[in-house]
Amino acid sequence: MVSSKLKSEILKIDQIITDAAEGADEMLVNEVIKHIAKAGGKRLRPLFTLISAKIFSDSNENAVSLAAAVEFVHTATLLHDDVVDESSVRRGLQTANDLWGNKTSILVGDYLFSQAFKLMIKTESLQALNCLAAASSLISKAEVSQLRLIGMVEMQIDDYVKLVTEKTAILFAAACQVGAIVSGAKDHEVDHLYAYGLNFGIIFQIIDDYLDYFGQEESLGKQIGGDFLENKVTLPIILLKNHCSEAEKDFLSQVFARSDIKSADELSKIINLLNKYDITTAIKSIANKYLEKCLSALELLPQNEFVHHMDMLAQDSLQRMR
Amino acid sequence: MVSSKLKSEILKIDQIITDAAEGADEMLVNEVIKHIAKAGGKRLRPLFTLISAKIFSDSNENAVSLAAAVEFVHTATLLHDDVVDESSVRRGLQTANDLWGNKTSILVGDYLFSQAFKLMIKTESLQALNCLAAASSLISKAEVSQLRLIGMVEMQIDDYVKLVTEKTAILFAAACQVGAIVSGAKDHEVDHLYAYGLNFGIIFQIIDDYLDYFGQEESLGKQIGGDFLENKVTLPIILLKNHCSEAEKDFLSQVFARSDIKSADELSKIINLLNKYDITTAIKSIANKYLEKCLSALELLPQNEFVHHMDMLAQDSLQRMR
Repeated sequence: MVSSKLKSEILKIDQIITDAAEGADEMLVNEVIKHIAKAGGKRLRPLFTLISAKIFSDSNENAVSLAAAVEFVHTATLLHDDVVDESSVRRGLQTANDLWGNKTSILVGDYLFSQAFKLMIKTESLQALNCLAAASSLISKAEVSQLRLIGMVEMQIDDYVKLVTEKTAILFAAACQVGAIVSGAKDHEVDHLYAYGLNFGIIFQIIDDYLDYFGQEESLGKQIGGDFLENKVTLPIILLKNHCSEAEKDFLSQVFARSDIKSADELSKIINLLNKYDITTAIKSIANKYLEKCLSALELLPQNEFVHHMDMLAQDSLQRMR
Repeated sequence: MVSSKLKSEILKIDQIITDAAEGADEMLVNEVIKHIAKAGGKRLRPLFTLISAKIFSDSNENAVSLAAAVEFVHTATLLHDDVVDESSVRRGLQTANDLWGNKTSILVGDYLFSQAFKLMIKTESLQALNCLAAASSLISKAEVSQLRLIGMVEMQIDDYVKLVTEKTAILFAAACQVGAIVSGAKDHEVDHLYAYGLNFGIIFQIIDDYLDYFGQEESLGKQIGGDFLENKVTLPIILLKNHCSEAEKDFLSQVFARSDIKSADELSKIINLLNKYDITTAIKSIANKYLEKCLSALELLPQNEFVHHMDMLAQDSLQRMR
């Protein structure tokens, strides 16, 4: 089983996180990092780095360092995101900004960014460093774009895909890419893994945005409707706007332009509209398009158990949709 | 003249900043970076990178990239600092957080951090990358410590020097260090420049903290008493506590423990106490101790005009005190 073969590497990543917390020599940094580590999460991004590396060679310390670096970049982004979104709950736990304040979250996020770069440098792979620096630069740029696009119901599917690619998918792509790089993959193989990660990441965000309207709060670990409350225009709304009547379109424009607090009735009305026009099916069809790209990127790689596992992970990801 | 010899390099740094703004392909990032560039500042840190490089060799593209990287790390730190400190004015201009909100400042700060790393990677010097990653990790850790130490009048001079070393001096040290590294300096020469930068940075922050009570608002570009308003315990207060009466000590403990808004009278009372015990002289004497270390670090370097210029910069820095 692939997951049992990766168990020791995953444990090493947990150890690197603990070391970063304790090595900070500052109790507040230590506390915050340990709190985030407790929330855990799926560690999906570092897993992709490890699997991508395993496709081409066996155990590899550099892959572990890069996987941990990827997780640190992700965690730093989450800390800053929660400040930006004023979130109070993530993965069922109180957020760091809610517990220690925005200031601490900003600075511990910065600390984790630096730790990520220290881990990358340790591998001495300038190519991997380049990939991850480019990815984190694109992520922060895209997060600024996202702020600018708040309330913009005029957004089109292409705008959405660009945003999602840059803010989410690029880190999945880089995670796969750097695993392959430090494992001696050929250039075209690195490119295929990048394509896999990028398309996986697009699906991942499409489903996340779908679940923000249709998910179960217990399994999400947060309230539904968060994007609506923050006036974030996501794929469900873009597709709805392309299907609904003029009057319903006016309602959407008006409600997403308002900056005051929305009512539960308004959220229900939107969910009813999404159901009325069967937006779920439209989203599934788009996600399936990216799934095809995802799977075909794997076809030109060595067909071993690790590639099959990646194939399965991509297919499984769509199962999060009802 | 040293400054004329560095003119073209300084212009290149300005160009790199403009390129980073325009290359972002996001108008909000572009606007914010251009606003910060307008505020300018002394570009002291990148200057140290350039001068340190020039001591050992002539024009060097890598030194320019690293100098720009140092400036980006500094600017990113300022953007996040202004959010943390809730500042509305810096260098006489409205701060980015005041103009575009905290969210944008956090994310553009992250973007600049990534740009800094991209510039460092371009030089392909893992040693320089290590120095700057270690420095930025220490800076964010120290900023968290600073938050924890708010209102702590029990702070001693040693605690203050540790904090100032890690949050401010380390970037001056790294700026000098990386300039020397990419210019082919020997290890002991790199170490001397590091020591110069570190001690320069300590003096720099000591004087900044002095000017926060004794500066002229026009030349500072911000109001005096900012540290007091934020309950930041700095060298003037630590020294004052070591000299004043028990009743005055109680006043200090009480006023720095309070989180409500302070009155102008309270600030005047503190400034009067600082004058009463001639804290300026005590600060000068401490700053002079670091100036000696700063200058002696230069003695074992090649005695050329660039080293002489660094000597002069250190001596001049103390002139900011009356």
